[in-house]
Amino acid sequence: MSVSLDNIKSAARRIAPYIHRTPVLTSQSLDQRVGAQIFMKCENLQKVGAFKFRGASNAVWSLTDEEAKRGVVTHSSGNHAQALALAAMMRGIPGYIVMPENAPLVKKNAVAGYGGNITFCEPTLQARESTMEKIRLDTGASVVHPYNNEYVIAGQGTAALELLEDIPDLDVIISPVGGGGLLSGTSIAATEIKKGIRVIGAEPEKADDALRSMKAGEIVPSLNPKTIADGLLTSLGTLTFPIIQKRVEQIVTVSETGIIESMRFIWERAKIIIEPSAATVIAVLWESKIDLSRLKVGVILSGGNVDLEKLPWQK
Amino acid sequence: MSVSLDNIKSAARRIAPYIHRTPVLTSQSLDQRVGAQIFMKCENLQKVGAFKFRGASNAVWSLTDEEAKRGVVTHSSGNHAQALALAAMMRGIPGYIVMPENAPLVKKNAVAGYGGNITFCEPTLQARESTMEKIRLDTGASVVHPYNNEYVIAGQGTAALELLEDIPDLDVIISPVGGGGLLSGTSIAATEIKKGIRVIGAEPEKADDALRSMKAGEIVPSLNPKTIADGLLTSLGTLTFPIIQKRVEQIVTVSETGIIESMRFIWERAKIIIEPSAATVIAVLWESKIDLSRLKVGVILSGGNVDLEKLPWQK
Repeated sequence: MSVSLDNIKSAARRIAPYIHRTPVLTSQSLDQRVGAQIFMKCENLQKVGAFKFRGASNAVWSLTDEEAKRGVVTHSSGNHAQALALAAMMRGIPGYIVMPENAPLVKKNAVAGYGGNITFCEPTLQARESTMEKIRLDTGASVVHPYNNEYVIAGQGTAALELLEDIPDLDVIISPVGGGGLLSGTSIAATEIKKGIRVIGAEPEKADDALRSMKAGEIVPSLNPKTIADGLLTSLGTLTFPIIQKRVEQIVTVSETGIIESMRFIWERAKIIIEPSAATVIAVLWESKIDLSRLKVGVILSGGNVDLEKLPWQK
Repeated sequence: MSVSLDNIKSAARRIAPYIHRTPVLTSQSLDQRVGAQIFMKCENLQKVGAFKFRGASNAVWSLTDEEAKRGVVTHSSGNHAQALALAAMMRGIPGYIVMPENAPLVKKNAVAGYGGNITFCEPTLQARESTMEKIRLDTGASVVHPYNNEYVIAGQGTAALELLEDIPDLDVIISPVGGGGLLSGTSIAATEIKKGIRVIGAEPEKADDALRSMKAGEIVPSLNPKTIADGLLTSLGTLTFPIIQKRVEQIVTVSETGIIESMRFIWERAKIIIEPSAATVIAVLWESKIDLSRLKVGVILSGGNVDLEKLPWQK
């Protein structure tokens, strides 16, 4: 199966009863600062505070009753873990989440709070995958990968679908890129709905594997990336990369300073909480990395999960 | 003139081109925590980050061209100052703002940033009023009081009008009460639109002059109130008090701890930035001060202007 606009529209119908239709916000002071007209699709206001709930919900609700009752499983310490746990709880099925034992307590509590059935393992990719495989064999649960999964990609594409329903005449859409689930889903929805729309991926300079992959024409893995945008550390997947290659105009990288300044500006002026990964799309405009002046630019604010005890602009 | 539902509907039409129609957000985790169904009207996402922009815009755009060109004047160091400055700038007329010289720099900069023509004075009520009166006599500007003004009250009532358009079957509406502009406008809109709806005012225990005024049957001034909810320090006005007496079921007071805990919960779970004054409406439910269980409760989140360097839950 390759993901189509129809898959995204089906996903939208399937998950509509469970997700928030998030608002699209504008800010005159942001527009003045960057010289373009920005439309912010607020997935930070989505359930569990991230777009991840769309893909997870689509995966969970696409299962047959027979499959569903055996549950779903993933390994993740990020927003996908919370999203899958909540989606499973809402369908009333087991949600098995493999987490590294050194994951922050706040993340463990969040997953537990959404009813996740947590198994801890050593903090290596190998341990995470073997632990997950063991659970799959023991329970018959369906694996839901955080991005390299067609149902997840289709689910993530529903944010751009809604954005273009609300603001049909966008010139450009910018989405962050980590594993590429959001960017690939966004690019399918946008380019199929509106011919000629430009789709851009935003990535930290310090985790620029998507940019390097696009240049190389093959997936270049992310090696020890160090960025405040902790949602964008992963490498592209075998499903997401070809979609991005085909449909995304370019990947734009942004600095750590640009991310933090944009994040703070959005908190102060738009009065919404966004996480550093979400701020990358604002930083593309903030740092004038490419000329988007006077265009109508849709940006997907991917999430809002931050530690309120420790903000990046505080000493 | 006493303010009617028609005045509020006219205000809504008048200011529609200039304001944000703010979203109404819900949070399942909030509902679970408090045992009611909450609909948050997000005036923190309004321009200048507060509902005050509604009333200021209605006052500014209700002036004749002749009056308007002489400008508007107020004394305020809070959200009303920013709101009036921006409304005046949008009409292209002078906005004279009298501010105490010891106002925080961030507030001075904000008013200046919205094009306000600032005059500083000594930090006493007498100095503020005499300075304002001098400007009025010199320029012929129209005085726009922050709450004791019919156009301002009608403008503030448009938030509840929109909320009830979106969610018609609310059982209760809660609004913060300081000078009473928002609460009086809300109570007119709500009780005229929906017979039997309950309107409740939320007030800090440490600035409980509205509660005491209701009990006494006359305006009891606020004397040196000390609360983190710095938008609610003022006393009721001669226009707002009779409306509140007639239409508001009760004033509920909330503790400082309740305000801070509610504020943090909204930041963490709803991912929006609200100021302490706005958190009072959540605190009413958070502290179970009255029984609203299983009801549909609309709350007006009045604003989101906070100092991001110093958050109340940080040491």
